[in-house]
Amino acid sequence: MPDDRFEIRPVATVESPLTDLAAAPKQADEGAPEAWLVFEPGMLDALDGLRVGDRVVVLTWLHRADRDVRRVHPRGDEARPIQGVFSTRSPARPNPIGLHEVRVLAIDGGRVRVSAIEAVHGTPVVDVKLVLREVGER
Amino acid sequence: MPDDRFEIRPVATVESPLTDLAAAPKQADEGAPEAWLVFEPGMLDALDGLRVGDRVVVLTWLHRADRDVRRVHPRGDEARPIQGVFSTRSPARPNPIGLHEVRVLAIDGGRVRVSAIEAVHGTPVVDVKLVLREVGER
Repeated sequence: MPDDRFEIRPVATVESPLTDLAAAPKQADEGAPEAWLVFEPGMLDALDGLRVGDRVVVLTWLHRADRDVRRVHPRGDEARPIQGVFSTRSPARPNPIGLHEVRVLAIDGGRVRVSAIEAVHGTPVVDVKLVLREVGER
Repeated sequence: MPDDRFEIRPVATVESPLTDLAAAPKQADEGAPEAWLVFEPGMLDALDGLRVGDRVVVLTWLHRADRDVRRVHPRGDEARPIQGVFSTRSPARPNPIGLHEVRVLAIDGGRVRVSAIEAVHGTPVVDVKLVLREVGER
């Protein structure tokens, strides 16, 4: 497996008032703004059935993250001991994929408005998944 | 953004008794087995600080999924109306990333044992993230 490589092709882009990475909140519940996800024309079929009110997980590619970092101070706090990125939520990691659980607020063709999301303007979106209900209601 | 591409480099591989994709459960709580995640040698630093008992989200690359599918019958059930993949959890999607919330059961160097996970043997792992506690305990 070490020599395998896979290609990520963005399906949408984040359109957000957040432009400054340093000022961005670390998590959505720490003051992130609403945003639009602007989908590629070829992705309209994949949006079919998505509804206002749905809870979804948005997967982003954190394109400004450092992929070579293996250990960090959690939350950038140097008072906390350095540790491996897999036991943190640091954006710096070998494959910098962000997970954002949001609610769909509006849908306008290929533009989808979502609740608080901690991703800066221009961040590529790579996937959207419905949040599952309990077994039996799926 | 449409022309951007990003390269995913697997960090580990799933070692599981699940080998038959057709027989695999669709979700972990539908009868999936425990498995080992076998990390690449270069990833040991990134595992530092991970502990038995931690809840983590494992991200996989569903390498056998069809990336050209845009609409599916949810859960493969033809009685259910076809809909866009973004409002389902189908493995068939433009970027076939799987999300698996599991508990760490054991750690043996670069081998990490995790609770029920619905990924077949040989599935590439692309990331591991700690599940966050409430704001204030992070």
